[in-house]
Amino acid sequence: MSFNSFGRILRYTSWGESHGLSIGCVIDGVPPLIAISKEEIQQDIERRRSALSRHTSQRKERDRVEILSGVFEGKTTGTPIALEIINEDARSKDYANIAKVYRPGHADYVTERKYGIRDWRGGGRASARETVMRVAAGAIARKILGEKVVIRAALSQIGKIKVDEKRWSWEDCHVDNLFCPDKETLTLWQKNLDEARRKGVSLGGRIKAQACGIPVGWGAPLYGKLDADLAAAMMGINAVKAIEIGAGFGVVERDGLENADEMLEGSGGEKKYSSEPQFVTNNAGGIIGGISTGQDISFSLAVKPTSSIRKSLRTIDVDGKASTVETLGRHDPCVAIRAVPIVEAMLALVLADHKLLHRAQCG
Amino acid sequence: MSFNSFGRILRYTSWGESHGLSIGCVIDGVPPLIAISKEEIQQDIERRRSALSRHTSQRKERDRVEILSGVFEGKTTGTPIALEIINEDARSKDYANIAKVYRPGHADYVTERKYGIRDWRGGGRASARETVMRVAAGAIARKILGEKVVIRAALSQIGKIKVDEKRWSWEDCHVDNLFCPDKETLTLWQKNLDEARRKGVSLGGRIKAQACGIPVGWGAPLYGKLDADLAAAMMGINAVKAIEIGAGFGVVERDGLENADEMLEGSGGEKKYSSEPQFVTNNAGGIIGGISTGQDISFSLAVKPTSSIRKSLRTIDVDGKASTVETLGRHDPCVAIRAVPIVEAMLALVLADHKLLHRAQCG
Amino acid sequence: MSFNSFGRILRYTSWGESHGLSIGCVIDGVPPLIAISKEEIQQDIERRRSALSRHTSQRKERDRVEILSGVFEGKTTGTPIALEIINEDARSKDYANIAKVYRPGHADYVTERKYGIRDWRGGGRASARETVMRVAAGAIARKILGEKVVIRAALSQIGKIKVDEKRWSWEDCHVDNLFCPDKETLTLWQKNLDEARRKGVSLGGRIKAQACGIPVGWGAPLYGKLDADLAAAMMGINAVKAIEIGAGFGVVERDGLENADEMLEGSGGEKKYSSEPQFVTNNAGGIIGGISTGQDISFSLAVKPTSSIRKSLRTIDVDGKASTVETLGRHDPCVAIRAVPIVEAMLALVLADHKLLHRAQCG
Amino acid sequence: MSFNSFGRILRYTSWGESHGLSIGCVIDGVPPLIAISKEEIQQDIERRRSALSRHTSQRKERDRVEILSGVFEGKTTGTPIALEIINEDARSKDYANIAKVYRPGHADYVTERKYGIRDWRGGGRASARETVMRVAAGAIARKILGEKVVIRAALSQIGKIKVDEKRWSWEDCHVDNLFCPDKETLTLWQKNLDEARRKGVSLGGRIKAQACGIPVGWGAPLYGKLDADLAAAMMGINAVKAIEIGAGFGVVERDGLENADEMLEGSGGEKKYSSEPQFVTNNAGGIIGGISTGQDISFSLAVKPTSSIRKSLRTIDVDGKASTVETLGRHDPCVAIRAVPIVEAMLALVLADHKLLHRAQCG
Repeated sequence: MSFNSFGRILRYTSWGESHGLSIGCVIDGVPPLIAISKEEIQQDIERRRSALSRHTSQRKERDRVEILSGVFEGKTTGTPIALEIINEDARSKDYANIAKVYRPGHADYVTERKYGIRDWRGGGRASARETVMRVAAGAIARKILGEKVVIRAALSQIGKIKVDEKRWSWEDCHVDNLFCPDKETLTLWQKNLDEARRKGVSLGGRIKAQACGIPVGWGAPLYGKLDADLAAAMMGINAVKAIEIGAGFGVVERDGLENADEMLEGSGGEKKYSSEPQFVTNNAGGIIGGISTGQDISFSLAVKPTSSIRKSLRTIDVDGKASTVETLGRHDPCVAIRAVPIVEAMLALVLADHKLLHRAQCG
Repeated sequence: MSFNSFGRILRYTSWGESHGLSIGCVIDGVPPLIAISKEEIQQDIERRRSALSRHTSQRKERDRVEILSGVFEGKTTGTPIALEIINEDARSKDYANIAKVYRPGHADYVTERKYGIRDWRGGGRASARETVMRVAAGAIARKILGEKVVIRAALSQIGKIKVDEKRWSWEDCHVDNLFCPDKETLTLWQKNLDEARRKGVSLGGRIKAQACGIPVGWGAPLYGKLDADLAAAMMGINAVKAIEIGAGFGVVERDGLENADEMLEGSGGEKKYSSEPQFVTNNAGGIIGGISTGQDISFSLAVKPTSSIRKSLRTIDVDGKASTVETLGRHDPCVAIRAVPIVEAMLALVLADHKLLHRAQCG
Repeated sequence: MSFNSFGRILRYTSWGESHGLSIGCVIDGVPPLIAISKEEIQQDIERRRSALSRHTSQRKERDRVEILSGVFEGKTTGTPIALEIINEDARSKDYANIAKVYRPGHADYVTERKYGIRDWRGGGRASARETVMRVAAGAIARKILGEKVVIRAALSQIGKIKVDEKRWSWEDCHVDNLFCPDKETLTLWQKNLDEARRKGVSLGGRIKAQACGIPVGWGAPLYGKLDADLAAAMMGINAVKAIEIGAGFGVVERDGLENADEMLEGSGGEKKYSSEPQFVTNNAGGIIGGISTGQDISFSLAVKPTSSIRKSLRTIDVDGKASTVETLGRHDPCVAIRAVPIVEAMLALVLADHKLLHRAQCG
Repeated sequence: MSFNSFGRILRYTSWGESHGLSIGCVIDGVPPLIAISKEEIQQDIERRRSALSRHTSQRKERDRVEILSGVFEGKTTGTPIALEIINEDARSKDYANIAKVYRPGHADYVTERKYGIRDWRGGGRASARETVMRVAAGAIARKILGEKVVIRAALSQIGKIKVDEKRWSWEDCHVDNLFCPDKETLTLWQKNLDEARRKGVSLGGRIKAQACGIPVGWGAPLYGKLDADLAAAMMGINAVKAIEIGAGFGVVERDGLENADEMLEGSGGEKKYSSEPQFVTNNAGGIIGGISTGQDISFSLAVKPTSSIRKSLRTIDVDGKASTVETLGRHDPCVAIRAVPIVEAMLALVLADHKLLHRAQCG
């Protein structure tokens, strides 16, 4: 029932504020005998960190992860794996203005009203800093899923500029390219981002994600639905405001014939399911009735423009009085960029959990 | 960890297949001393049932709900409330074709592959019939929320025809109007639905929902997020493929200034929060950082056209061989209509749970 | 987090008061394709019912169980199994005295103080009637465990009369013998029970239980401990006040050498664990460090004399004023007797849950 | 569903092995605005550490706790509180013998069989070292309970020597006295412990615990029972093999009249419950029907003699072959001593959780 955990059998619990001594997480329920090193986890963390470099915010952290428990002689032992990163750059900043004034679009106001107290340093618990632990945990989740499963995400739109689906190349999509799957679009995005920074505003983004190699049968019909768990996991990422699975909102304007994912006999041979049946289309996004179909799981989500902008905004202070606030210094013009590895991590975590759940009930 | 439960403190568990002896649910954690009668619950059930009449499927059920436990002398006792509806019309139908062939877009195939067995009568557990219990449970959730909270949903689009937001009238929106908030649009929809039925196809729909009167502070920052729980609850409704909260996918093309929900000082008086601060806009949809802001909670979701259409579709049979399938008899041209009361019920359940959760931690 | 559920993957949720329309339960997470009939479940219910005949209370119920869901063509489908028994004898009794006065030792007072309301008819939710559903669910749990696992319990003491361990015979222990494993002791018990009934008092009892055939490795080291889960399950049975596992309280007076369960090499052959190692003793009761050792799981528990006695006891009424109360009519001189099948059922449920849990994490 | 968490709303999750980099825990769901300092937590840790001094094992650790998150300017913020202690003395020891041979009575064998891997350094996850975090978390739980609640435990028996109940003095019971509530008994115990150490054996112990000041109404009737949760929490402490609540196993030999806890009218005044009713006895140990009665909650538990003794014991090695093992160096003659503060901590944690649970449902 925890407020700071998710997962059913593979259970992730995190701790830490932006400026506490450390941030960390405990991943419980990991199967034993999986080879994992802190270097592998660090790689995923670096990928997220790189996404913060040019076009994102400027916190200087080395972000060195430590495995505190649960791994022995290079392998998981089945006991809880705790990961921790010391907050090094946590003391120097001046957040005096945030302490007294609520920033619109941030969690400042709701936190104060809910708890009557708020660690205002760097956004406290609501800071996106916590997401580094999700990325770290995601590295372990990928190991549980195994090498046949491919988890990947890309930016498909920044502001008004969409990637042309025809030029989509997963190969071109990596962190140094702002996770852009098309080189031509990238140039336009960079121009837009520079302009946004000059103007002191921020831009929204759309992320597409996929999981390939998931067998048919993960999930459950009603309240352990794979799509419901994915929706929660994605909506739980900072700044995400929408998710659509498969054809998503596109289904509204389709009729049932257009939307049907017809099935063809598997080509393989005599025995039932010796070769998997083929779907003609994948409007379902790989999930029907809460259960994976064996097709690629695919979805898309919306990330809002960061609320930290170099513009003076009307707000109230902690005494309820009218005030204004403006984010000073360099800022992050598009948080959707760094959300990409987080989306991948959350996707891996949800799927790894369902892999174990399926095994529990169905052997 | 249950596969057939949701909620954290207010916990709903359902049972039942389309053609089992009965369907029902257990609602656990309901506060004591709340006045509730089966007639009140029946009202909500009737509202869902009416939505099935002209434009939806034709199962003839009286759907009489019984309160099996948890209510004594008209009041909740704090013990689990079990609700049950006997399946009366469960024996007569012929589902022989479904038994042998998987219907595209339905859960037939994934269920068989997951479990190795499938109650094919009427869709079994995956049937939308289960949703009647959600509606029943929702009636209790509304009682927990109290009269100051208004929960409501409407259809905002069927197929390609959208309601003009300017003519939106919640007053006009009721079950006899297909939950359409605009009389002019209704005429167009009815024409379209008739045409779809004639053609033997089905139409998708979009639902808008609102919760008004929710105080600031419900939810939790990271994994007990109100928006994440709502996303899971909505994505868990049959045929829902997308959800957006507040501005939703609209945030992608906005900049941070356009998307900022600025705040104004409350007008009320001297004491802090003697009057609530005002938000200039509500792009957030009433939830920031996973916590309610005190504004209306609002979101929108996509319901796919039902997969049961009077068209021959390519598929495979239970032996993996190529086959075709066509839904015979009258069918349901737009399942989004009957989804409206279900959306309301799930919204009420999630919010009632968070009301209790907030009380648990914050008193 | 439910108040009326237990289990982690195999999850049992019950509903019902003594005099509601019905009592029932939902068992979620049952693996598919297990053959089960309502007749098999009924057998276990009859066994509990017989225990109520001569020496226990006199409620006349046929207790016919129905499977409402989750079983199709004689096999489990993986969806929730709901079981229900209609309360037939629920209307006739006069509980007017209980409505106004709290019976010492019963949950009357605490229920009223906790909830501010109380279904006083027959003890409401706190009635032992609910345990019939545990017995029913236990029948399914046994199926999940398979035929190699033997679950059994016996009465080892009633009042001051203990069974002589040397004469212990599991074969002689069945419901018609008051679950007494020794015929000589049985005669003494029957005499004592008759005397207790004449005097209008009740007697306590001790139950011993065993699970044989459990492999090494079920459980978890710290908070998913098999012994902790068993302790909770047993202490959750009405009237149970103590539990000891293996040597139990006996360990207090032993030294570490006496208490050591030494191990001997398996006799079987060359390959590691081709034959299981042998333990010289089983002071641990089959569980060490929260994990099954492969030995018999064995424990013992104390059941208090029922609080319903034909003696006038000092108490208070619902207005807090001094009063007296006496249970009229025939009464139940030793509730430990009918607790035996309930202990077995709870033991089966806990073990079946851990079987699935182990499979989830360790494959 | 976590294997390494407990609690429902107040949720404790721990990590760490005996010789990992650190041990720690996350406490989630703590109400905001509770004043807490690391010095206060350290006090409880010192109390446990002192219990290890003369008569317990000799690990040299400073055990300095750090609060990593969840506390801001001396107060809880409602976000997860992570506590950590660095393992300083973790590298020096030689556990080569444990690596190859299973120690009887320890979790070595079951761990290896369950997971196929085992961190054998110092017992790994199964080491009692983890209990330091329970004590730390217990300090926070006491704060949640408030100053009116008194949580206390004492040793009532070591080996065959019991404390005379008539000489029981809670005042005399503190860590420097081996938590012995009677000075005369203490002398006998010390003699016995010295003798046990000389002989190289260990002794069992019995602990009594109490919670005073708990109001009537915490707990829940069936599966959220306060006594069931306590039983699980206590049985989950290393080496605990039995628990009895109130009269415990004593109820077996009593009749219902002897065991009745009669009630007297409160002396206070006119208004209902203006003064609490009085119970004549407390055989129930403060819990009836799973719910607190308002009397002292009291129970007793058995701690086995540590399995680490200076005697050669028959066992098997990791290849399944016959071997022997003997614990070398100084050892811990009675682990029950250091279990006392752990019992208090677990008691506080269970009660604090139920305080919040009660508030959630009943306001």
